[in-house]
Amino acid sequence: MNRENLINQIKEKKTFLCVGLDTDIEKIPEHLKALPDAIFEFNKQIIDATKDLCVAYKINTAFYEALGVKGWEALEKTVNYIPETHFKIADAKRGDIGNTSDQYAKAFFETIPFDAITVAPYMGSDSVKPFLNYKNKWTIVLGLTSNKGSEDFQQQKIGNQFLYEEVIGKTSEWGTKENLMFVVGATKAAELSTIRKIIPDHFLLIPGVGTQGGSLSEVCKYGLNADCGLLINASRAIIYAGHDENFAEEAMKVAQQYQTEMKSYL
Amino acid sequence: MNRENLINQIKEKKTFLCVGLDTDIEKIPEHLKALPDAIFEFNKQIIDATKDLCVAYKINTAFYEALGVKGWEALEKTVNYIPETHFKIADAKRGDIGNTSDQYAKAFFETIPFDAITVAPYMGSDSVKPFLNYKNKWTIVLGLTSNKGSEDFQQQKIGNQFLYEEVIGKTSEWGTKENLMFVVGATKAAELSTIRKIIPDHFLLIPGVGTQGGSLSEVCKYGLNADCGLLINASRAIIYAGHDENFAEEAMKVAQQYQTEMKSYL
Repeated sequence: MNRENLINQIKEKKTFLCVGLDTDIEKIPEHLKALPDAIFEFNKQIIDATKDLCVAYKINTAFYEALGVKGWEALEKTVNYIPETHFKIADAKRGDIGNTSDQYAKAFFETIPFDAITVAPYMGSDSVKPFLNYKNKWTIVLGLTSNKGSEDFQQQKIGNQFLYEEVIGKTSEWGTKENLMFVVGATKAAELSTIRKIIPDHFLLIPGVGTQGGSLSEVCKYGLNADCGLLINASRAIIYAGHDENFAEEAMKVAQQYQTEMKSYL
Repeated sequence: MNRENLINQIKEKKTFLCVGLDTDIEKIPEHLKALPDAIFEFNKQIIDATKDLCVAYKINTAFYEALGVKGWEALEKTVNYIPETHFKIADAKRGDIGNTSDQYAKAFFETIPFDAITVAPYMGSDSVKPFLNYKNKWTIVLGLTSNKGSEDFQQQKIGNQFLYEEVIGKTSEWGTKENLMFVVGATKAAELSTIRKIIPDHFLLIPGVGTQGGSLSEVCKYGLNADCGLLINASRAIIYAGHDENFAEEAMKVAQQYQTEMKSYL
């Protein structure tokens, strides 16, 4: 999906919500657990219930890998079930030397038709660039993450700026606003104004709203740009809103709340 | 596998070689390509040919993920085929917020019985610690990598030291020499003496010998400690040494050369 299409979807549906499919076999409703394809069945119902309220789905690969081959099958089926209109993110946090990043790009852009993948920047340019070689595919580089551990290295100073600023600044030169986004945690809303000075035009993927405690209004205050420029992800707050047969309906209600609030900021 | 067992294997076999199974379907011999399980068949023959000359195998997950479900099946079969005596490394470079790293740890320590996983440090303590909770399992944190891109961030100064020194120093406090190793590229042998001042006792996983150009003698000069403390990985130089029916024999010859040289340093 290209940038123009993504922006059009946001404008038409008046939402920039991304639903995170961090589907944990331990946490899905009891009545689904016995099904041979429980994870996919759960995802399918969540997608059906939320697709009019979001523009993107983010699949956290860890939850699928934890189930081995069966999990990988559920992952592929889920991606193929997501409508063509939606932006599909592999939240995989990959990154390795060039010949290996080539293979990760193949895995998530060719073998499984994702639109985007999250990438860890520690190994530098040749670990990121192989992902940028694909037309209409997106590399989402970790900038400033939502967790406490972001203090350990990301918020250390390199010269006059923080490591995350160095990462965002340098990495932004390797791609364009047409193929590169950054992860910035919603729990770091105040830092968004500084980040917007470095990359005013890029889209940001913002996790950490909901269970992790980030504020949607704060994120929008500092992060929105003329093209919206934000994809706000909520995972657990939506997909585990209900615990029984009505889980999809409950998920829809929470997604609806996000969409209503987002509409007011657009 | 615990530290004592690993050291005993090294002493008995007089080798600290790790064979990297970066198995690329494009690069395996023609006569195997048509087999339904070509990747596993290739790995099986490489393992049979090299197991007496190495103490560890490192599986680069990217090459398996590039093939989707079939690749993941080949990965699981390969790990289960590696003898119990050998240290099994998932070269996966994972790392995410705590609840997600929990799932990655489950994937590579429980669902698939690896002994160790490589982890990217950018997201800090809560992204690394979930892997350290497993007894007799190992977390191998990226320190200073072998690629050109290591200059971009790892070799930037944070205060008086390089980022990779900060990463190695801080991370070493989260675990012990019994459950934590570090990746240091063989192409960075000169930096090993500084690194050994920070972590004299930890094992290091050293990629970059062979195709990437790192020198085994230089690495040993600066990196060996009283317990050996090194696992030297070679992937392409061994597994693609031959291109025909004799590929396993050719792989054995190269592994034998490494073992002979390693024996002289022990």
